Amino acid sequence: MTVQDPNLYPVTPRNRAKRVSERARYDRAAVHAILDAAMLCHVAYVIDGQPYCTPTLHWRRGDTLYWHGSSASRMLRHLKPGVAACVTVSHLDGLVLARSGFNHSANYRAAMCFGTARILPEGPEKEEALWAVVDRFYPERSAGLRPITGQEAKATMVIAMPIDEASAKVRAKGVGDNPEDLTHPVWAGVIPVSTVIGAAEPCPHVPEGMARPATLAPYAEGARLDDALRQTQAIYEGEAP
Amino acid sequence: MTVQDPNLYPVTPRNRAKRVSERARYDRAAVHAILDAAMLCHVAYVIDGQPYCTPTLHWRRGDTLYWHGSSASRMLRHLKPGVAACVTVSHLDGLVLARSGFNHSANYRAAMCFGTARILPEGPEKEEALWAVVDRFYPERSAGLRPITGQEAKATMVIAMPIDEASAKVRAKGVGDNPEDLTHPVWAGVIPVSTVIGAAEPCPHVPEGMARPATLAPYAEGARLDDALRQTQAIYEGEAP
Repeated sequence: MTVQDPNLYPVTPRNRAKRVSERARYDRAAVHAILDAAMLCHVAYVIDGQPYCTPTLHWRRGDTLYWHGSSASRMLRHLKPGVAACVTVSHLDGLVLARSGFNHSANYRAAMCFGTARILPEGPEKEEALWAVVDRFYPERSAGLRPITGQEAKATMVIAMPIDEASAKVRAKGVGDNPEDLTHPVWAGVIPVSTVIGAAEPCPHVPEGMARPATLAPYAEGARLDDALRQTQAIYEGEAP
Repeated sequence: MTVQDPNLYPVTPRNRAKRVSERARYDRAAVHAILDAAMLCHVAYVIDGQPYCTPTLHWRRGDTLYWHGSSASRMLRHLKPGVAACVTVSHLDGLVLARSGFNHSANYRAAMCFGTARILPEGPEKEEALWAVVDRFYPERSAGLRPITGQEAKATMVIAMPIDEASAKVRAKGVGDNPEDLTHPVWAGVIPVSTVIGAAEPCPHVPEGMARPATLAPYAEGARLDDALRQTQAIYEGEAP
């Protein structure tokens, strides 16, 4: 008998890494770190045998991924009865230029999550999620907003997908050239890339003298987006009931 | 009789935008601009009814998308006979903080492409592609590299997907609050985000005094990755035979 380690996602043929398996991890901490550092995920789902890959904003509470969208959306309408989905979050961290074509690579962090996605019915979990989609990213923001109308709540669908299986893959190192190639006379190295915050552009209707609230400090100009998202996720989880 | 405009992808139930349709475009120029400004795409495909969403590097020549990977990869083995795939490229450009939860949004550029993905057989198209994966991103680089071995070529699969249908969706504007919300006393605005190049980290085995080649100038520190990729794509297409 094997006992499942609660810190690990189960490893099955669906999520087991088939190649470069030394880059793969199945622990919740590794998967969550990648999910939480991004706003944008890609959801794969199937309608009548046709795969679709839809970009959307996601957030995580515990072992559940959430996303939302219009009640008119094709993806969301088809999710209604609960459908198999694969949600992937990827960060490109660097371009790796080697001395052979074969060893060119990229530094990245990617998490692939499998589960059944379901539309939340009207009720407390959906109501909470409609605020979480704001407060998870912008701490305490919902308290200052104009309230949600009934029509808006109706027009918005929230999807929840408990993560059944997941895997994380990370490459974070230098050039992986063959030893015999190291003297080949060509420049080689890593060109890092990162997603950073720019200067905020206040809406022209913001009254003169109204500053950006201090709760948005993680989104300071020049900060890394993944850092800001990790910080705001920690606040969101810390406030979890 | 309707004649298909050669500048547009055909619009079918598969790629027609179902919501916020004023953000949708079907012209090749709009789709290609989004594809070419990114290295990272997400490929959705189906194995035994299960959707998978795999991140990978892509490049485009004409109306065909290419990506590559190990012959051992699960995704690639299943693509062998030619399978339906959906390839999506997304750029997150800004966080849009409105005065109601409902009007919170994001600025983004996304392209969704549908087609049948096929593994290229051994032959000239694959050989060319094995160099293109380097030269499309790093102009003229392949000429200076250690040659590809037969074993490396065999271990690498190249996938080609002619784009049958595609759509682009772009949001690039300020806060979209309801007029009656504009006086609600909360800060609102756009926080732009962009993916930028960092300081190159040369491999420690690069001989002292060997500079980065001038052909890598688009990847200068502080440059936007999407700009660098657009520039290098223009060079790649300009050199097309």
